[in-house]
Amino acid sequence: WARTVRGLLLDVSGVLYDSGGDGGVPIAGSVEAVRRIKASGLKLQFCTNETQATREKFVKKLQGMGFDISVAEVTAPAPAACRILKERGLRPHLLVHDDLISEFAEIDKANPNCVVIGDAAENFTYANLNEAFRVLIGMEKPVLLSLGRGRYYKETDGLKLDVGAYMKALEYACDVQAEVVGKPSKKFFESALAEMGVPPQQAIMIGDDVVNDVGGAQRCGMRALQVRTGKYR
Amino acid sequence: WARTVRGLLLDVSGVLYDSGGDGGVPIAGSVEAVRRIKASGLKLQFCTNETQATREKFVKKLQGMGFDISVAEVTAPAPAACRILKERGLRPHLLVHDDLISEFAEIDKANPNCVVIGDAAENFTYANLNEAFRVLIGMEKPVLLSLGRGRYYKETDGLKLDVGAYMKALEYACDVQAEVVGKPSKKFFESALAEMGVPPQQAIMIGDDVVNDVGGAQRCGMRALQVRTGKYR
Repeated sequence: WARTVRGLLLDVSGVLYDSGGDGGVPIAGSVEAVRRIKASGLKLQFCTNETQATREKFVKKLQGMGFDISVAEVTAPAPAACRILKERGLRPHLLVHDDLISEFAEIDKANPNCVVIGDAAENFTYANLNEAFRVLIGMEKPVLLSLGRGRYYKETDGLKLDVGAYMKALEYACDVQAEVVGKPSKKFFESALAEMGVPPQQAIMIGDDVVNDVGGAQRCGMRALQVRTGKYR
Repeated sequence: WARTVRGLLLDVSGVLYDSGGDGGVPIAGSVEAVRRIKASGLKLQFCTNETQATREKFVKKLQGMGFDISVAEVTAPAPAACRILKERGLRPHLLVHDDLISEFAEIDKANPNCVVIGDAAENFTYANLNEAFRVLIGMEKPVLLSLGRGRYYKETDGLKLDVGAYMKALEYACDVQAEVVGKPSKKFFESALAEMGVPPQQAIMIGDDVVNDVGGAQRCGMRALQVRTGKYR
């Protein structure tokens, strides 16, 4: 079956680099691996749940580490969320990282009728969580969009709680179920495949998260590989 | 059946007073209600999930508002947790309110083999949550004790996320189920009833939380009343 493979989806954090306060460090061999994949003629799309920066900043950081990567090659949750917000006339209260806010520049945020939660990192303060909770519980029918549902990830200084943990806190407090934008949502993988122009049965997803990368891809009809870097334990 | 009633369990926050950064304010009529209950000859025990202060401080605050209350009349989660920790040889990493820490003064906390989470309020920082998570995920078999499982409560300046929301975040991140100490645990109600010396069928629980007060008490064979103050919406 390996001969039928025409495209790869690559997770980034934990696969190509370990993120961290210092910007992070590339994982040994990964810069060369991306170069070789591209040289081989295989199609390649980076499929990330990264929401600590705009795609532009994210790509710049990776280019700085030596990766051959461009913005158009990155499928990320924030642009996908913006499409959903526009389609459904949703005005978000944002609980996201400071560096992600500009992705939502075009979106009307007055008088919010939903909450969008991303990996807000240092913005996950007691005050900000209470504020997002109050906005949500104040709605007649609370709508919570979550940019991913990861449990945790590895940074250079250790494991960190990911957005999924905070999503669960709000879900429980408000008795709602979040809509997940990003991996492992089927729609998200499908849009990454569409960017490559490769059908699922001719693509492989490579990631370090057995649920969000491997499980999500398999449910879309892709094969998937789990690497032993990043959060792998 | 009302004639068979010999004892009352009273929730405190949201029933007798609304808590807040300023110490809180009594709910109209509640000081007088406690006085009348005691004058009637009914037995009375205060059954609270309050974990933002030691019982001593908590009682002093309520006395300052005019309530007739003493430490021995209060059943609270921290002393119950200390009994469990000692019985099972557990050494806790504490994620609790600063003012609760002295309740655990007698407990060995070196080289933790469990995490105890309470309503840590301002101590629910991103750093503290990550630290508790790392201690927990680093255990071969993670043990998480939660002082209550409330969703939220009302303070004078608005609704606040309660310990249950943060408990859910850690449960999800570590794929564990917390053991709840405090309401609605059956063991906790039973120890409050034992303090009064009244069997469940002769007692009524009065609270503002339909799950933790009313549901929990009913599962112990008590009758229960929900008041329309506090978090009632």
